[in-house]
Amino acid sequence: MRNTNKVKIIPLGGLHEVGKNLTLVEYRDEIIMIDCGMTFPEDEMLGIDIVIPDVSYLVKNKEKIKGLVLTHGHEDHIGAIPYILKKIKMPIYGTPLTIGLLENKLKEHNLGKVDLNVVRAGDKVKLGKMECEWIRVNHSIPDACALAIKTPLGTVFHTGDFKVDFTPISGDAIDLHRIAEIGKRGVLAMMGESTNVLRAGYTMSESKVGETFNRIFSQQQNNRIIIATFASNVHRIQQIINSAENYDRKVVLSGRSMLNVMETAQRLGYLKVKKGTLIDIKDMHRYDDSQLVLITTGSQGEPMSALTRIAFGEHRKIKLTPNDVVILSATPIPGNENAVSKVTNKLLESGADVIYETLSEIHVSGHACQEELKLMLSLVNPKYFIPVHGEVRHLMKHSEIAKAVGVKEENIFIMKNGNCLEISQKNAKFVGDVPSGNILVDGLGIGDVGNIVLRDRKHLSEDGLIVVVVTISKSEGKVVSGPDIISRGFVYVRESGDLMEDARKVVKGTLDKCDRKTITDWSTLKTNIREDLKGFLFTQTKRNPMILPIIMEI
Amino acid sequence: MRNTNKVKIIPLGGLHEVGKNLTLVEYRDEIIMIDCGMTFPEDEMLGIDIVIPDVSYLVKNKEKIKGLVLTHGHEDHIGAIPYILKKIKMPIYGTPLTIGLLENKLKEHNLGKVDLNVVRAGDKVKLGKMECEWIRVNHSIPDACALAIKTPLGTVFHTGDFKVDFTPISGDAIDLHRIAEIGKRGVLAMMGESTNVLRAGYTMSESKVGETFNRIFSQQQNNRIIIATFASNVHRIQQIINSAENYDRKVVLSGRSMLNVMETAQRLGYLKVKKGTLIDIKDMHRYDDSQLVLITTGSQGEPMSALTRIAFGEHRKIKLTPNDVVILSATPIPGNENAVSKVTNKLLESGADVIYETLSEIHVSGHACQEELKLMLSLVNPKYFIPVHGEVRHLMKHSEIAKAVGVKEENIFIMKNGNCLEISQKNAKFVGDVPSGNILVDGLGIGDVGNIVLRDRKHLSEDGLIVVVVTISKSEGKVVSGPDIISRGFVYVRESGDLMEDARKVVKGTLDKCDRKTITDWSTLKTNIREDLKGFLFTQTKRNPMILPIIMEI
Repeated sequence: MRNTNKVKIIPLGGLHEVGKNLTLVEYRDEIIMIDCGMTFPEDEMLGIDIVIPDVSYLVKNKEKIKGLVLTHGHEDHIGAIPYILKKIKMPIYGTPLTIGLLENKLKEHNLGKVDLNVVRAGDKVKLGKMECEWIRVNHSIPDACALAIKTPLGTVFHTGDFKVDFTPISGDAIDLHRIAEIGKRGVLAMMGESTNVLRAGYTMSESKVGETFNRIFSQQQNNRIIIATFASNVHRIQQIINSAENYDRKVVLSGRSMLNVMETAQRLGYLKVKKGTLIDIKDMHRYDDSQLVLITTGSQGEPMSALTRIAFGEHRKIKLTPNDVVILSATPIPGNENAVSKVTNKLLESGADVIYETLSEIHVSGHACQEELKLMLSLVNPKYFIPVHGEVRHLMKHSEIAKAVGVKEENIFIMKNGNCLEISQKNAKFVGDVPSGNILVDGLGIGDVGNIVLRDRKHLSEDGLIVVVVTISKSEGKVVSGPDIISRGFVYVRESGDLMEDARKVVKGTLDKCDRKTITDWSTLKTNIREDLKGFLFTQTKRNPMILPIIMEI
Repeated sequence: MRNTNKVKIIPLGGLHEVGKNLTLVEYRDEIIMIDCGMTFPEDEMLGIDIVIPDVSYLVKNKEKIKGLVLTHGHEDHIGAIPYILKKIKMPIYGTPLTIGLLENKLKEHNLGKVDLNVVRAGDKVKLGKMECEWIRVNHSIPDACALAIKTPLGTVFHTGDFKVDFTPISGDAIDLHRIAEIGKRGVLAMMGESTNVLRAGYTMSESKVGETFNRIFSQQQNNRIIIATFASNVHRIQQIINSAENYDRKVVLSGRSMLNVMETAQRLGYLKVKKGTLIDIKDMHRYDDSQLVLITTGSQGEPMSALTRIAFGEHRKIKLTPNDVVILSATPIPGNENAVSKVTNKLLESGADVIYETLSEIHVSGHACQEELKLMLSLVNPKYFIPVHGEVRHLMKHSEIAKAVGVKEENIFIMKNGNCLEISQKNAKFVGDVPSGNILVDGLGIGDVGNIVLRDRKHLSEDGLIVVVVTISKSEGKVVSGPDIISRGFVYVRESGDLMEDARKVVKGTLDKCDRKTITDWSTLKTNIREDLKGFLFTQTKRNPMILPIIMEI
């Protein structure tokens, strides 16, 4: 009997390339999906807005899906849901803030009638023959949970994103008791997040940042304070609000996502704000600098964000002055360093004081460092371990750590997206792969931009384009108009007058040559034009623009 | 009498955007150029190979130029010279290795007959009414110097790139005695490099890395060792060779720039290698893994470098095995983090062990940290201070430090490229600007890619291109062929058959409408086609491809 009493673990995202987390736990003919996130495009994915996981395996097996269980409400864990829902339907389970943020997202995509279910830490939900339990962890967003999925073969434990914070801002600390209990009972397989595995020691408590805010607020009594952070970091924003209330300042929120998340967080009771603390941006003029704190998006130097617009003097309502103190309460995500530096420099040029991480303790990570990862591994004490949520170097380091705390080396599996790990009573082994990969979203198009289109975009971006058009009479095979040459992104035309005229002569020569040889097959003719012109332009400029010969027939 | 007994300091590069260093010191009608470097393009400079400074001010004043004095041989200090020499000629002065590396570069550009002059630390060269003295400093390339330029008004001191290394690998430590002497005599103005100004403390000595190499070599007796570093870091390579000789290994050099720099360094006596230590890559097969060290380029994840080709299995002569230990002996330069991560992950996937900076002490910086900058400022004790070689945040921090060690706040000038600081007996002040900026080099073209071309490349890279061609008979104003639509980089055509056909219908509609209205002015017709098609495509796809309407007349 195939597949009996076997559990399959199939990551469809989140490995090797960080982001777009999606993992499947399969028992017999039932599938539980864990998270369903998006990621931002890499540099070479020109023009792409976001990237979501390939779910063709799920589409093919849609009748098996028992539900989608969510660990927390960050984009890389819930961001792909609106796109996926256009192909498959399933009940979705998550904590109140997670579901609240998801609801906003579904509204933006005009998706009604989704089967959303709110659970709380400690809740268990039966999904077919499996059962999922949510367990409180700490993270840079409230209401984050680890998951323990009980299968007839044993428990599959997923840490989600987590850190250990014994002094969290609101809500409880990570439920180490429950994790210990589950570990004691026996865990078959554990998936552990690896984001900070290269960092020794412990991640500082979020409350550390509050101390720094209080110190800065007490030192800058006469200045306006502007703080940029992630919209979803509700605890960070709570601490800014606390400091503001301590020092009698009003708080202005700026940036669309900031307003959205705060509205949801406040409505669901995750943010405690005294009446009158929050004011609308249009009432800002009624207060002195010393009475104001602005909280904005843009801590990653995003081009359209509030902070970037403020820095470049393009924000309609917020103008920087030398009396401003700007705090970047975040670390640049790898790849964003240059964008953040540019915004920082621009802020400094305006005369404002800028406090960033290198200079002060105004940010802590939301992810566990090595000692916390060891604690988690020790408590869960799994038979099989699969490091997740990281690049290869993270997964490998996490494997080392797992080995060091006692997981058998042969029971540690470094997986790739699409790999299928089959666990039986006896052993665990890789069994074939399922389709996986990146689906690129560009505007309204989901997956209609593939490698050929990207290759063309790259080619166009590097050397530009030459269009050659010629009209030929079908009856006589003679050129009746052209060749005309149009270029874009190649060289500045005023400086290249002769070059373009010479290029036209080259094409004319090709046409004459082909005429003499009586080549009338258009595709041969196009190839000849392309090759001759390519050779000419490369000799003249050492560049290879895309050449597009077009023949019009009359 | 205008301009008498006044010194002007004019940076043409190296400020705000790091790289392409070029500073002018002007006394009466005489100019000394300090360094002349290139930089790599920023992300938005699509297709650009390198960036050099705008020297139109120098071209206009070429009879004033007395000479170009070089601090050291890094690309951001000498890389623009071959391009600049095509426009202006001047005698060039530098230390032996600096001139040696420059000669290689001039040869590649087929530039003969350049007035090159070798000087040594301690030498003074009279250049018109000014005199330049070279003073030994430590840096990540041998033969680096600070410059003291004596003018009739006082001494202008430029630190060049430097660190303080009391235990350098070869050559002498920084000449603090001479710097102290010059400072004692009185310095009018100092330009100080700011690269590491955000880092507290002291930069470690280069010899620290040698200790780590020895430790790794002693631990990895059976493995092949591959070390990636900068080709120009001769001291680093010396230490690798020392460790190799200690542990009886042969050394193979890989990468074109590595071979070039090593040949020059060895010929000029900057590298001490026992006979038989260096072997050719084609003799590598005669030795066991345990007998080999490979030194390669590619520590920044550069796409075409030896290490990247090794990592991706594309190197013709070097195949990775799990018996390899790869050491990345460098820090990613800001902006290169992702490229380096990708190479690291790929190396790890092959089963090789990879040692990178986060994990071990296998790199030290070549630039001074805060305590060294304070030491330099204290010894030179300048009247006026100009922080250079940094972004705004660096320049501002360096100003703070200068103030802290006693430079008067009003005597510190944060300059921008093109600013002109005029120093007289009485005071220093900004007097107008000279032209400055980035000249983009793309293939053979120097400066022929400007903002319009870059804007087009960006547009093409994000949404691709639609070409609409139609042939119209001039006599009757009727369409005789087309409209035809060709797209590149827009959507994958097989998936967009209907979209393209619908687009054609839209254009046909536009042509009919214009015909009815008897619009026969081609530019109006093109505008109509562009607008109608743009609206249609945006509604359908939320994308804005570049639309290129072409009308052929017969």
